[in-house]
Amino acid sequence: MKLQDIHSPADIKGLELPELETLASDIRSALLEKLSRHGGHIGPNLGMVEMSIALHYVFDLPTDKIIYDVSHQSYVHKMLTGRMDAFINPDDYDNVTGFTNPHESPTDIFTIGHTSTGVSLAGGLAKARDLKGGRENIIAVVGDGSLSGGEAFEGLDYAATLDSNFIIVVNDNDMSIAENHGGLYQNLKALRESDGTASCNFFKSMGLDYRYVAYGNDLKSLIEVFNEVKDINHPIVVHIATQKGKGYAPAEADKERFHFGGPFDIATGNPLSVSETKDYGTLTAEYLLKMMENDPTVVAITAGTPGVIGFTPDRRQRAGKQFVDVGIAEQEAVALAAGIAKGGGKPYFGVVSSFVQRAYDQLSQDMSINGTPAVIGIFYGTICGMNDVTHLGWFDIALISNIPGVVYLAPTCMEEYFAMLDWAMNQNQYPVALRVPGTKVVETGKEFPKDYSDLNAYAVGRRGSDVAIIAAGNFYGLGEQVADGLKSEGIDATLINPRFLSGIDRQLLMELEADHRLVITLEDGVLDGGFGEKIARFYGTSTMNVQCYGIRKEFVDGYDYASVLEDNHLTSPQIVREVMSMLRK
Amino acid sequence: MKLQDIHSPADIKGLELPELETLASDIRSALLEKLSRHGGHIGPNLGMVEMSIALHYVFDLPTDKIIYDVSHQSYVHKMLTGRMDAFINPDDYDNVTGFTNPHESPTDIFTIGHTSTGVSLAGGLAKARDLKGGRENIIAVVGDGSLSGGEAFEGLDYAATLDSNFIIVVNDNDMSIAENHGGLYQNLKALRESDGTASCNFFKSMGLDYRYVAYGNDLKSLIEVFNEVKDINHPIVVHIATQKGKGYAPAEADKERFHFGGPFDIATGNPLSVSETKDYGTLTAEYLLKMMENDPTVVAITAGTPGVIGFTPDRRQRAGKQFVDVGIAEQEAVALAAGIAKGGGKPYFGVVSSFVQRAYDQLSQDMSINGTPAVIGIFYGTICGMNDVTHLGWFDIALISNIPGVVYLAPTCMEEYFAMLDWAMNQNQYPVALRVPGTKVVETGKEFPKDYSDLNAYAVGRRGSDVAIIAAGNFYGLGEQVADGLKSEGIDATLINPRFLSGIDRQLLMELEADHRLVITLEDGVLDGGFGEKIARFYGTSTMNVQCYGIRKEFVDGYDYASVLEDNHLTSPQIVREVMSMLRK
Repeated sequence: MKLQDIHSPADIKGLELPELETLASDIRSALLEKLSRHGGHIGPNLGMVEMSIALHYVFDLPTDKIIYDVSHQSYVHKMLTGRMDAFINPDDYDNVTGFTNPHESPTDIFTIGHTSTGVSLAGGLAKARDLKGGRENIIAVVGDGSLSGGEAFEGLDYAATLDSNFIIVVNDNDMSIAENHGGLYQNLKALRESDGTASCNFFKSMGLDYRYVAYGNDLKSLIEVFNEVKDINHPIVVHIATQKGKGYAPAEADKERFHFGGPFDIATGNPLSVSETKDYGTLTAEYLLKMMENDPTVVAITAGTPGVIGFTPDRRQRAGKQFVDVGIAEQEAVALAAGIAKGGGKPYFGVVSSFVQRAYDQLSQDMSINGTPAVIGIFYGTICGMNDVTHLGWFDIALISNIPGVVYLAPTCMEEYFAMLDWAMNQNQYPVALRVPGTKVVETGKEFPKDYSDLNAYAVGRRGSDVAIIAAGNFYGLGEQVADGLKSEGIDATLINPRFLSGIDRQLLMELEADHRLVITLEDGVLDGGFGEKIARFYGTSTMNVQCYGIRKEFVDGYDYASVLEDNHLTSPQIVREVMSMLRK
Repeated sequence: MKLQDIHSPADIKGLELPELETLASDIRSALLEKLSRHGGHIGPNLGMVEMSIALHYVFDLPTDKIIYDVSHQSYVHKMLTGRMDAFINPDDYDNVTGFTNPHESPTDIFTIGHTSTGVSLAGGLAKARDLKGGRENIIAVVGDGSLSGGEAFEGLDYAATLDSNFIIVVNDNDMSIAENHGGLYQNLKALRESDGTASCNFFKSMGLDYRYVAYGNDLKSLIEVFNEVKDINHPIVVHIATQKGKGYAPAEADKERFHFGGPFDIATGNPLSVSETKDYGTLTAEYLLKMMENDPTVVAITAGTPGVIGFTPDRRQRAGKQFVDVGIAEQEAVALAAGIAKGGGKPYFGVVSSFVQRAYDQLSQDMSINGTPAVIGIFYGTICGMNDVTHLGWFDIALISNIPGVVYLAPTCMEEYFAMLDWAMNQNQYPVALRVPGTKVVETGKEFPKDYSDLNAYAVGRRGSDVAIIAAGNFYGLGEQVADGLKSEGIDATLINPRFLSGIDRQLLMELEADHRLVITLEDGVLDGGFGEKIARFYGTSTMNVQCYGIRKEFVDGYDYASVLEDNHLTSPQIVREVMSMLRK
């Protein structure tokens, strides 16, 4: 059967096993072709080809419901549910998102991008079904490292209390993004090595029934086990060993690199373009490694994404015990950092802006109430970073800066980032978060102060009058552009680098009142709860006018940087025009 | 040995077993005496008497370190570490907080009030010790229901990777606040019933060594096992079965009521004062139970605190399958609610303001991005609620109202709460959070609209001029007082009930510009990231003056309502005085 003839799962229901095997092979080739040109989650999806086919062969969607946890595993599911074109026609490659998406198909129930949520969400569907007297199968597909997240555990703990149909498929490929860590994964290994018979069984200990499938890329085994558990009357875990990157030698060999990546040459597996530019992850890792040489108490921590902070396998080896990957478990990472700092160590936890959301309570309770001098590096906290709705880097300012006691610093360039990092790692008074400035490394060659213990002291870049531009972090460059633009309109604006997102420089703001009538704030994040509003509140009863620039509070998916910036009036010409108009009022 | 002669653990080190037993008995009597007069966590501490003595008898603090998870279990620890007076002298009862507190003693390492953090924090101390080449014992004491929280699981998962001393004491009293739920607790039961020998063992499956102690209120067994694991060279779980409320018949019989409570009569166990007034929990439970009678898809959800939403044992029985206690697992509760709503059910998750912090990511990702019409009731979101630093109800406005898509409503009284709840439960368009108005039920007898689908439409209570008071939720009463106070100063102020914390009524705010020159905002929470700042931003470039009233961003412990309100200029006379002074400017 030709791929282009598959419009819905019904089209594969009548096939015989050999035909399904041919289909799997064709799908894998198409996937590889698309991914090699387009990039995406390579390894996870190559490993899921047979499982996805078998799921759709046995279960009946959309009546039955499959929830893909870390839904970057759902490409083959998409191919089989009316979206084949987006995988076989290069012109249509961008017609689907990289995650399950209810706007694309009724077979996608949730938009899911953060891991470890699938069992919980599917548990809710199962509960709703039971209350409504329904009979459909509810299937959660988890794995690819997502079991280490606390929400997954909480979901399993609840699942065991259901006395009705609930099928939890654990896709065990022995990896998350990098290799797996933690006690749980030792148990998965023991289960794999004993063909599922080890007496010590995490899932059974959670009160769940259990099946093991050793050949998770074998269609026959998969169809058998899914038929066996279909319409089951209680919760069951189907633990399936798959091979990440299956069927493509370079991806099988280097699972970490092929977890997610850009276009590559199919013949060799080599990336089509190699970036020669610096990146903050690499720079941070090298900085920390150097510090580790002289101080055995420095620890780099990641929650399953070592690449974000530049800890490639060789750097992990160099760091030895001074590197910790807790797995996808941000709560643990923050609490661990708090504990290490309290114990006299120097922890640096580097985390993606969108993922630190998991750890708000730990940032507040474990870290800040306890005043532990842990250092948290926030990566991709910018509008111009990840543009999937589930991965927006817009919310960290409101999340972190409003927690009492945390010093949230916003460096404007590479040099300032390292000046601030240096201070943060060597002080022992405050929990410090650092907003790594954007995705591209901006080098200014400037020198920056080494001491940031004078909290909330803003730095004046240029002293002018009439208009003051307070441009935070990434948006300092935009501030410079606006200042230049205003200059050409005859306005000699003041430009301020606030440096601190977590407080205001009352003294400086009061001084501005003498010869300024308008303050504009620029921040690379959502306006609501953000930095600018603090300035607006400060000047609430003065005659100073304040205009806050940032992004509207909304969820946007797969957006284009330029149009979102334009739409939010975040380009220099727009701001200059608006400032001039305000001044004329 | 007399209790008043115990000033540090050294004072009990030389005692023989019979003397220790007498000590335990004396401590239990003193505890009971204090708790009956003062209130506090009764059951948990009565169950911990022997374990606390044995821990201090065997380990050497502050060199060795004990981290009490849910540190409401630490009263006896406090008695043995220099704070006996606060338990035996009524005048000194208030000299200690209800949780571990580093400001009180070097044997208290962290301030801990939220559950499930102990293993993670202690894991950090163990890691720091290893990096520094130390040898001390690190002991985490968990339990009393805290194992169901995802952070505890993440902590155990990491703990298993340590190859050094780490002792995790699980205080298993078969309860959290109410009875325990979830698959994990079935395993604990199986372990208790098999004297720790069940082949299916959750802790072993996590890769941890394991010991079981059946008689957790027997000093001899406890001292033996602690001596056995002292200085152990790897992580180990010591699973200890204790009896919650041990040694006091009424607390043994009614574990849920005696988990935490006010003063009671020792002879009967009856509370000394019974409140006859209504409370929002009871009212909410009765409302939901009535709804459940006609709609089988209505579900009340709690994360281990059923009492907060009035679900006493008899009401839980009445609700049957329509009541879910997921255990202490707020992430699961929110995701489950999102799943139930997506599946067509009507979930209501009631949660304490401070505890919902655990679920920011789930509120954002699972609930809001997916637009699931789940309803979240936020209890004790007020300055005048819980006053422990770990339980402040100040942060939920900044936490929830800045998430796109959530409608966060702030009713001003009982009648408005139920009008809004009614709308929230019967609509299927938005995720809705409701800020239950304060701790005391305020009845106004007023009628309120039944429809809140016109988002962000504020309600004008009184229309005046010059000054507009936008008084949110709980603080509407304060707004009325201020309006009255201004009236007597000759100002006929406008009073507005914004109803929505998550957005602004641009139309109304613009209209105010015609005949008002000052807007004040009143909110029962932290100013930073809160409601008032949105109003200040809106008016940033207009001539309208804005003054935001709320609480400063800081952590305060065991505070007195009146002085914190005064200190933050939140009394009506202060506000009236300041408004008059601003008008004269």
